[in-house]
Amino acid sequence: MIYKLLIAYDGTNYHGWQIQPNGISIQEVIEKAISTMLQEQIRVIGAGRTDAKVHALGQSAHFYTEKSLDLIRSLHSLNCLLPKEIRILLIKPASPCFHAQHSALSKVYRYHLCLDKVLSPFKRNGAWHLHYPIDQQLLFAASRYFLGTHDFTAFANEAHRGVASYDPIRTLYRIDMIQEEGGIALEFEGDGFLYKMVRNIVATIIECASGKRPCEEIPAIFASRDRRKAGPAAPPQGLFLVRINYEISTKD
Amino acid sequence: MIYKLLIAYDGTNYHGWQIQPNGISIQEVIEKAISTMLQEQIRVIGAGRTDAKVHALGQSAHFYTEKSLDLIRSLHSLNCLLPKEIRILLIKPASPCFHAQHSALSKVYRYHLCLDKVLSPFKRNGAWHLHYPIDQQLLFAASRYFLGTHDFTAFANEAHRGVASYDPIRTLYRIDMIQEEGGIALEFEGDGFLYKMVRNIVATIIECASGKRPCEEIPAIFASRDRRKAGPAAPPQGLFLVRINYEISTKD
Repeated sequence: MIYKLLIAYDGTNYHGWQIQPNGISIQEVIEKAISTMLQEQIRVIGAGRTDAKVHALGQSAHFYTEKSLDLIRSLHSLNCLLPKEIRILLIKPASPCFHAQHSALSKVYRYHLCLDKVLSPFKRNGAWHLHYPIDQQLLFAASRYFLGTHDFTAFANEAHRGVASYDPIRTLYRIDMIQEEGGIALEFEGDGFLYKMVRNIVATIIECASGKRPCEEIPAIFASRDRRKAGPAAPPQGLFLVRINYEISTKD
Repeated sequence: MIYKLLIAYDGTNYHGWQIQPNGISIQEVIEKAISTMLQEQIRVIGAGRTDAKVHALGQSAHFYTEKSLDLIRSLHSLNCLLPKEIRILLIKPASPCFHAQHSALSKVYRYHLCLDKVLSPFKRNGAWHLHYPIDQQLLFAASRYFLGTHDFTAFANEAHRGVASYDPIRTLYRIDMIQEEGGIALEFEGDGFLYKMVRNIVATIIECASGKRPCEEIPAIFASRDRRKAGPAAPPQGLFLVRINYEISTKD
């Protein structure tokens, strides 16, 4: 049976979603909890990788087991086994062909910017604190260049480029500006995101909004396919994976 | 010169506002930072004590120095010297008779209740997670009994009762219910609060709202002046000191 998980985590003290040798990952901690609960070795596949210090309000994942789970009891047991920084919000059976990553239709990320003079202690691990003024009209204007289908090579870090199947074409369906107390959030929905793509786009949008770069340069950055032409990545702690959208038929 | 401070802090890792032998306090850390900046021993007087793990969005405090401060530079220096869990939001000169505690006209506290089945990782240090349903009409009805002027002895812990000036009469001006994502907050404004008074009131209100105690018992609890008649204190991490209100004439 394939089970789908909906997961929230505070990524502050983790080295990202994916299992890796250099530090503790969300995936590793969840695999260990499920394996302990089921007393068998379980592999958990996530919908999207998140980097160190990046958070999730609604990461999706799946795992396979021959066992049939009591869903309410399993949810409770898993959350007892996990640290409070990681919560399973929902566990439910999925169709046999469900795959957390491949069945995803779109992904939603939100990036929080703090514009207050002093950064609130309650935002210190969840926002990028800008120490200079930004022009919100320029912010909006810059963000418009990223909508639609593009080759995002200039906005993707190297990590997965060697892979034969590497495809840098992605489509962004929407970028919303959300006013919030003490700042603003940018919410991105797209069919997929390359490595560090959201953070690289945010950095370039902020360069434009703070007057360091004219918005009109953005098409040339796309055309260059050169990562060095765009700004350095925005810091990880401002980024939240909000939600993965699936087709209704895959019983998400 | 008397200077007034506006302070925000995440109290999770501190043993409360007040200096004490058993652990590190907010007051101690701020006194050390100001003393370092001014190169003299500074005493900081806060408007209200907060317990271990209790937070502040807007604590007020004052200190005295003969020196004349550059306000912008001092704000920046202090925040560089302080950990990111504690932020000075504002520093400004106050009138010679200003006293952070005695000049206060009213204080505002907010208590966050999480009603979600699973506690969000982002609320784990900032809300009381209720594992049982509550009736919001009973919540409201119970809260009404606490408005106005009462002898709050039954809702105050022992700590300061030995003091000759101990006066258990307080007035609550308002108690608001604020709907928020995944829960509800209770906001209290009063002329002052006894030791653990907000947390004891919240605990009793929740006993009523969850059907464990009829609201009509509350007047008898007041009349008993017996701390044991009310519920045990609600957990500290749900409590936020929001704001201290001063008369305009004291140049707050």
